[in-house]
Amino acid sequence: MNYKIIDVKERLLADNDRIAAETRAALARRGVLLVNLMGSPGAGKTSTLLQLIRRLGGEFKIGVMEADVDSDVDARAVSEAGAAVIQLHTGGLCHMDAAMTAQGLEALEPEELDLVFLENVGNLVCPAEFDVGAGLRMMILSVPEGDDKPLKYPLMFTVSDLMLVNKMDAAAVFDFDPEAAAQRARALNPNIQIFPVSAKTGKGFDALADWLRQWLTEGRRRD
Amino acid sequence: MNYKIIDVKERLLADNDRIAAETRAALARRGVLLVNLMGSPGAGKTSTLLQLIRRLGGEFKIGVMEADVDSDVDARAVSEAGAAVIQLHTGGLCHMDAAMTAQGLEALEPEELDLVFLENVGNLVCPAEFDVGAGLRMMILSVPEGDDKPLKYPLMFTVSDLMLVNKMDAAAVFDFDPEAAAQRARALNPNIQIFPVSAKTGKGFDALADWLRQWLTEGRRRD
Repeated sequence: MNYKIIDVKERLLADNDRIAAETRAALARRGVLLVNLMGSPGAGKTSTLLQLIRRLGGEFKIGVMEADVDSDVDARAVSEAGAAVIQLHTGGLCHMDAAMTAQGLEALEPEELDLVFLENVGNLVCPAEFDVGAGLRMMILSVPEGDDKPLKYPLMFTVSDLMLVNKMDAAAVFDFDPEAAAQRARALNPNIQIFPVSAKTGKGFDALADWLRQWLTEGRRRD
Repeated sequence: MNYKIIDVKERLLADNDRIAAETRAALARRGVLLVNLMGSPGAGKTSTLLQLIRRLGGEFKIGVMEADVDSDVDARAVSEAGAAVIQLHTGGLCHMDAAMTAQGLEALEPEELDLVFLENVGNLVCPAEFDVGAGLRMMILSVPEGDDKPLKYPLMFTVSDLMLVNKMDAAAVFDFDPEAAAQRARALNPNIQIFPVSAKTGKGFDALADWLRQWLTEGRRRD
């Protein structure tokens, strides 16, 4: 029976990778950047989006896909911030896959947009396994989770292009060593870009917005 | 293809439930309580175990199964606290299932033990779906994760017997309403037992240890 499950999983991942590659190519043709935003429950994904929409919403047309097991708490907050939002329910599934993402994108009409964020299901394990076709993978580690998380959930840190270290405003309350967290992440992924931020106070988000702005502008120049 | 996947999942869950029932019956015959400890990465599962081992280790023989995607950071800490420990690697899987738990129990030799904790993979989604044969399901919500988590990850709160609200020492730093969290959890699961704790300072753990002591003693009286 083990053999059977693995068989299905391999088939599933191969299909997923094919759909993800198609999504990535279609978005590149249209000059749209899709960012897959991942992190544990409560790491600060939604408040990170609100900070970024505030800084980039004037220059770029932003869309957001809110993926949740079951609720629309975040979609309302993001919609009030002025982005185009679509809520996706995974129906109990612990991650988004490429087919669900493609469906969501279709409903968002991405040809009208410059930048689309997928807020993935709060989970440090499963979303790392599924390529959704994003141009950038951005993960959040929050200070209260601890600086040992790259040791325990290595795949997420390995596949991400950016790592935000959020809730830096609470660093004094927790035994969190930002240098240790950064070293552990870089040991898995030497190219990972690390941004210490506080989605509560906004600190650090100007630097992140600058980085994304540059990525978007250079991406367009290539087109 | 969707049909095929669901088919496998149903088969998998039915097999899982059968093995879980066998485990639960075998443990009950031997008078061993298995506690399935669940929560997000960094919610404080390991430090909760250390607090409980300190309080209950003199009266009860305690074993711990540390389930991790890939690492043995926690097993070392728990072993130093004096419990019998076994490290389980899920090989990328986001949760423990009943068969893996049964394997772990065999290696732990539970007939020598009174109380066994399974520290599940850090994840608020997948572990809730899999009955591992535990007599008690204990989940941790930590203050920095936010009081809206029962709305967003309802299954975990629905299936748990106990909910620890951890990192209460940091409550002043976060906008966390313990009453709102409790109400949202009870709306899903009216019988859930709620314990506000701080695994850092130890506050609240005497009450939890008393509750577990009573459960263990009454369980034995029934034998």
